[in-house]
Parts: sequence; structure tokens; C-alpha cells
Amino acid sequence: MDPNSAHMTPDEFRRRGRQVVDWIADYYERIERFPVLSRAKPGEIRAMLPPDPPETGEEFDTVLADLDRVILPGITHWQAPGFFAYFPANASGPSILGELLSAGLGVQGMLWSTSPACTELETHLMDWLVGMLGLPERFRSDRSGGGVIQDTASSAALCALHTAREGARAAGRDGPLVAYASTQAHSSIEKGIRIAGIGEESLRLVEVDDRLALRADALAEAVAEDRRAGRVPFFVCATVGTTSSHAIDPLAAIGPICRREDLWLHVDAAMAGTAALCPELRWILEGCEHADSFCFNPHKWMFTNFDCDCFWVADRKSLIDALSILPEYLRNKATESGAVIDYRDWHVPLGRRFRALKLWFVIRHYGVEGLRREVRENVRIAQELAGKIEEDPRFELVVPPPLNLVCFRLIGDDAANQRLLDTLNESGEMFLTATRLDDRLVLRMSIGGTNTRAVHVERAWERIVAEAAKIA
Amino acid sequence: MDPNSAHMTPDEFRRRGRQVVDWIADYYERIERFPVLSRAKPGEIRAMLPPDPPETGEEFDTVLADLDRVILPGITHWQAPGFFAYFPANASGPSILGELLSAGLGVQGMLWSTSPACTELETHLMDWLVGMLGLPERFRSDRSGGGVIQDTASSAALCALHTAREGARAAGRDGPLVAYASTQAHSSIEKGIRIAGIGEESLRLVEVDDRLALRADALAEAVAEDRRAGRVPFFVCATVGTTSSHAIDPLAAIGPICRREDLWLHVDAAMAGTAALCPELRWILEGCEHADSFCFNPHKWMFTNFDCDCFWVADRKSLIDALSILPEYLRNKATESGAVIDYRDWHVPLGRRFRALKLWFVIRHYGVEGLRREVRENVRIAQELAGKIEEDPRFELVVPPPLNLVCFRLIGDDAANQRLLDTLNESGEMFLTATRLDDRLVLRMSIGGTNTRAVHVERAWERIVAEAAKIA
Repeated sequence: MDPNSAHMTPDEFRRRGRQVVDWIADYYERIERFPVLSRAKPGEIRAMLPPDPPETGEEFDTVLADLDRVILPGITHWQAPGFFAYFPANASGPSILGELLSAGLGVQGMLWSTSPACTELETHLMDWLVGMLGLPERFRSDRSGGGVIQDTASSAALCALHTAREGARAAGRDGPLVAYASTQAHSSIEKGIRIAGIGEESLRLVEVDDRLALRADALAEAVAEDRRAGRVPFFVCATVGTTSSHAIDPLAAIGPICRREDLWLHVDAAMAGTAALCPELRWILEGCEHADSFCFNPHKWMFTNFDCDCFWVADRKSLIDALSILPEYLRNKATESGAVIDYRDWHVPLGRRFRALKLWFVIRHYGVEGLRREVRENVRIAQELAGKIEEDPRFELVVPPPLNLVCFRLIGDDAANQRLLDTLNESGEMFLTATRLDDRLVLRMSIGGTNTRAVHVERAWERIVAEAAKIA
Repeated sequence: MDPNSAHMTPDEFRRRGRQVVDWIADYYERIERFPVLSRAKPGEIRAMLPPDPPETGEEFDTVLADLDRVILPGITHWQAPGFFAYFPANASGPSILGELLSAGLGVQGMLWSTSPACTELETHLMDWLVGMLGLPERFRSDRSGGGVIQDTASSAALCALHTAREGARAAGRDGPLVAYASTQAHSSIEKGIRIAGIGEESLRLVEVDDRLALRADALAEAVAEDRRAGRVPFFVCATVGTTSSHAIDPLAAIGPICRREDLWLHVDAAMAGTAALCPELRWILEGCEHADSFCFNPHKWMFTNFDCDCFWVADRKSLIDALSILPEYLRNKATESGAVIDYRDWHVPLGRRFRALKLWFVIRHYGVEGLRREVRENVRIAQELAGKIEEDPRFELVVPPPLNLVCFRLIGDDAANQRLLDTLNESGEMFLTATRLDDRLVLRMSIGGTNTRAVHVERAWERIVAEAAKIA
């Protein structure tokens, strides 16, 4: 190493790396001491940062000290056992270390040849997961399909929409395109429609039933009506585990409509897909054999740190045709041989990091049985909580939770529920978020954190009951 | 921790984390022993992986051993000093440790409130970088603009295209849209046009001059012709440092055309932008004050591991308007106050990891002066190599390298150059890629690796000369 160079030597990396590993281990040991939801006010973190960058390099210890002083007060602790907001983003030791190795190797997997292991491990794991979740065999890379890791389900949905649109256009289907999803579908569908230039007016939000799942009969009607009006139905997004309430759209009823009407069926199982690891929960994917594309997020509930969305297509050729461009500077023998996968053609970005490594570490550390055990325990805890809510006359269980998301409200008006929510979040002990169902404010408790055990949920429920008593 | 749980305890993380840190430090110490370009054959890595995932968890040591046995043979060593292919993806110690901390904290920064530090540090650094690169002040967040970290320049280009399109539509500009870029522009522009549904036929590839930079007069002509034909010009992508040859499109001449014709000007400085850290190289951005959006990739040449693309807009409102959707389950007081930035509205994905952390670690570790020193040294080495090539009658310097990418060829036909390229890459000592310029095969040597010093380039040149002698 050049003595004039500012680069960190391997030896310094060894020393500093240990400090950082210790910092993280210490963080997890003291994680319950922080308020789950950050109490920082807008601008408060920035105010602690100097207006200009340093001209000369600073000591690593200074930077690490600022992590405690400047950053931690502005952290909402997603890994804390009291984090019940949104959906989990449950990191784990093996995953964090897989991510570290991926950063350390520093390879870029845009082409097979730019690191064959980056591509082949990913393809292999995606085939493993087809079996692990009981997905249709045609999603496997040795059939017509294949899987790829994307950053998020939003990007996956955009790729599905774009591929479906290109397919419809190539088939000569002229006229204004129409896509369908339930009123409960994730905002990423609308965002994807917009970015793909299809036009927001082309998205029909189909009615749901009393479990908040898409009504297949309403879908069929909407499609028929659009056809009568000369429009071109082309895409359906079915959600397995909606964000608001975990509703499971009935794939077995939606699928045949899509086949009959020649519509691309995309299944967004971003949150709930992980449950399919357990045979007894696999009913959520019944009918999935009709899907043209499917995604779920190990970075939500499968102990893999963000980002890691797994996306499959039944016909990889259509995806590649829709996204492939081969400029001169990317030409290489392996690509031209046709014997390899170049994942740059499977998503929006060209470059990509080695995300399969962390997923590999997770699956091997836990084993399939270990993953199932954790998922089952989350579901068990959630169902137990739901039981308590149902028995308590002061509360209402808004929908029976299919898995690990519990939606409930205090009997009373929205203001009372908002007050309850605010009090709980301000307590620092937990962080819950709300949604609106049937035009009423509903509290959501999502149970899937790596560090969340039964005792944390029991304690949270006691606190909820106590705060509710004060409000009433 | 529950004794039945398979989760890794903080103590085990501490122990395993040290092993992984050591593995990475060892890797960097022995990195020159591996062939730079992986010698794996298609399928060879997969063949070493078991057909099914493990039912029960495996020992960490087993997994780590497989890193050496299964993964390393399939790695193309992007961090090796002999990696001269494509563009660099130069990781560094502080960056890898920043990434580790980001994985360890495991926060998700979709909203300000989901971790205020994740958003505020990012905004702050993006403002720092405006000063560091000498970008227009209007890109600052305390003016009309602002910056955001995206995964890649491809995604940034898609956001710019989409925002420009929405703006043109909102302004009532009807008719077929037309976008412009040079014949040398990156493939991501075409990919973005396709995904955004604008249609590939809407992209005009404008002629270049003898330095392979976009000809402003040809751009003006093309715009005029499209207007005459009733089409709607709306977007220009100017490239600062093209992929093939590092050509610098003349922003000072392109900018006024865009202003006059009301075209969105996006500047793609993905590779070369880092050079603007050095005042004496800042000429590459002359005219940048006309840009509506700008991006560069610290993950290429600024010692920050992949992924980290910095993207700015001059008018953040237009970007947010084009991408914002606020569903009920994301509502929160901070967002409604209007006092904060919610970065989910600044890109395709909803979720986002804490990428600012690694960028902060890099800037603080090196200091601005330290970064400049490394960039200058890369440029110096590249210019020195170019001088040698120019003096050698057996070789041709195809274009004078503006910065750190040297394009050259052996005097002779394409077959001879292909043979030279293959021999060099098969040697294991280095990895170069090729492109076509003026319909001739040209070898590219991109000098920007963290571990690449003058001696490595000197040694590579000696080998190139020796292999060329054998071919001649």
C-alpha cells in the first residue's frame, strides 16, 4: 500500500471491522433501551452535522462516536422487539454477515461473466425457494421460468406491468389498456402504472368482500365491461396479504378469469409469501399455478435484511424480451453462447450487487425447518393476541387475522383510537401504525420482528389495555 | 433469547462477525493471487451446490468454508488491482463498514419518520456534494432542488424521463414525444424510454464529433426537424464520460438549446462525475447550470461500494408530483406537516436502506482532499499510460483520454485485437473489456480501482506489449 494513500489497509480494516461488529452486537444488547419510534424533530439531526464536509480525513473513532451522538437519536428501531408498525424488516445475524461479505467482495453481477457465482447462486436459490414455498414448477429456471432478486416489490411490479404491456402490444392488442387490482392493493401498483406510462385512469380498483379480499365476480364484471367499451384488459395484480389488513385475494378464483381473458396475473405476496414455507399455511397460495409472475420479500419476514425481493416469471423469455438491450461494451462470449443468465435483463437497473449471499447465509443458518419454526411462532403469538382482543369488550377485532397482522380498534370514535395510537407510540415502548378500513381508523399490530417474542407482545397488550382505560 | 430459537445471539454475532471481518481482510491480502476474470464455466458453480436446501440449520463454519470452495472460483475480482474492465466499482474499508452498520441497524427509510437520521443525513450529504462537485446551487435542498441516493444511474434516468414526460403532458404538450441523446449514450436511456412506455422510436441518437461527444448543432437540427413534423421534443440526456470512450458532451452548448426549446436536460455523469471533486477537472461540468437533473455514481469511482447513485433535480416539486402516492397506511404527522422529505417519493421503490451511512463514512475517512488525491493519481496514471501508447508505433491511442479511461488498439485488424484481449484476460493478471468505435474493435483500460497503483498499470502495459509482440 502506498504510504501516501488514504486507503484503509487490510490490517486497519481488521481492527475497525471488529469495532463495528462489536458496536452492532452492543446495539442489539441494548436495543430495548431506546424509544422504538425516534423522538427527533424535523431538522434536529441535520442541525448536529457540520455545514461543510471535512477537508482532511477524520479518525475512525470520531466517526463511530458520532453514530451514537448524531445518528441513534434519529433512528426508529425497526429491529426492536416493540416494533409492530407497517410490516417487519426483520434482519438477522447471518443475513447481516452475508451483506457484509457481499460488500467486501465488491462484485457487480450485471452479467454472468462479471461474477458467475453471483448469478448462479441466485438462480439456484430461486429454484430452491420454488420448492420451499410450493410455487408452480414452471417458475423454475430449468423449466420456462426463473427467478431474480430485485430491490423491492415495487420494482418487481413495474417489471411485471411493463412485460405484460409489451406482450399485449406485441400481440397486436390495440386500444386503451386496463389493469386491475383490489381497492386494498399496494400503492406500488398505481405507482408502476404511472411510471410505465400506462396512465392512472387505466387502473381499476376492484371491490373487496367482507374479508377485504378481491371479489372475483366483480373482477370478471369489470373486465367484461371494459371489453364492451373497446378497452384492452391486460393485467391483474392479486395480493396475498394486503398492507392494510393482510387480506388474501382468492387466486383460485382469479386465475381462471385471467387465463380465459388472456390477462397477465401478477401475485404480490411481498409480506405474506414467507408463510408458505409452512405446509399448513400454504393455502394462501392456492391457485398460484395460474400466475405469470410472483414476488415475495425475504426482507420483510424471512430474516433477511433489506433489500431482497424475490421475483419469478413463468416465461422468462417475455421478461428478457421486454428489458434486454445489448450494447457493444457489454458483449462477451458467455452471453453470446446463450448458455448463461445475464440478470441485467431481468430488472430496471443494469448493475447489481451480490444479494444472493445473504439469502444463502439465512437459509443455511436456519434450515427450512428453523425458518418454519420462527414463522409459526409469529403466527401463534398473533393469533393469541387476536383471541385476547376478541374476548375484551372494550376492543374490536376488525378482521380475523389470517397470519401475523392483527387489526383492531378501541370501541369508540376515531379520535379515541388516534389518541390511543399516539400515546402508545410516544411511550417509546412500541411503535404501531394505523390504517382506514370501512372508513374507520384501525390500529395495526404486525408481529414478525426477529427479536419479538411472546413476552413482548404480552407486555404490549397490557400497556394497550392500560392506556385505553385512561382514554375511556 | 428463547433457547428454542434459531436466531443468532449478539454474542454469537460478535464471534462470527470477527471471522467474517478477518475473511475479508485476508481476501484483500491475497487478492492478487486469483485470476481477475473468473475461469468458471457455465453451470460449474451450480454443480457444486446441493439440489435441495438444508432442512435443519448448518454450522457457520461450514458456510464460511463454502465461500472459499464454491464461491471464490466463480468470482470476477472487481477489487483486484488488475481489474480494468467496464468501469470500476471501487469499494473501500470505510464504505464496507458503513454498509455493515446500515445492515446492522436494519432501518428502512421510506418516510422521514421511519428513521429521521436516514433521511436527514442523506439530504445533508447531497447538499455537501453539491459544493464538493461545484454543482449548481439550485440543486441544493434549501433552494428549489434536492438530491437523493438511488441504486443506479439507470433508475435515476428512468425517474428523470418519467418526470419530464409528466411535466410535458401537464403543460398540455400533445403529440408524439421525442427524447435525444448521443449515439454514445448509455443503454439505460433506451431502457428507460422503453420502461416508461414512451416507445423506442421516440429516442433520437444524435451524431457525435471526432471526440465522440454529442454535436450540439446536430441536436438543434434534430429538434427543429421534429418540431416541423409535429412531434414534441421533451428530453435530452447529455453524458459526461460515455461508457465506451469517456466522451464529454458539451453541456455549455447543449444547455442553451434545452432552455430555448423547453427540454428537460438530464446529465448522466455516472462515471466521470467524481472527477469534478478536483477544481482543475471541473471543466467537464461546464454548462451544468442548465441541467434539470444530474447523476453520478460514488459506487463507480468514489470508493463507495455498490450501490450508490447520487441523483439531483433542480425542481424537487416536479419529481415528487410525478412519483408521489400517499396511501392511508403511510400517513403520519411529520409527512402532513410538510416540514420533512419522504424519500419514497423520489424514486421507483417504496422501501430504502440507509445508504447515506457508507457515503458519510467515505467522505469523513478520506476528507475532500484525500478523495481528490486518489482521483488525481488515477488520472495521472491513465495519462502516463496514454503517453506510452502514443509513443509506441505498434499501438494506436484511439482518442485522447479526458480522464482515466484509455482506449487503444493494436495496429492491425479486429481479429488481432480480439486475440490480444482474450490472451490478456485468460492470463488472469488483468481484465480488460472492449468496445467498438468507428466500427473498429477497441480495447478499454479503465483505471480507478481502490487497489490499483501505478505499478500495476506499468506491469499490465509490459504484459500487453509482450503479448502483442507474440501476435504480431
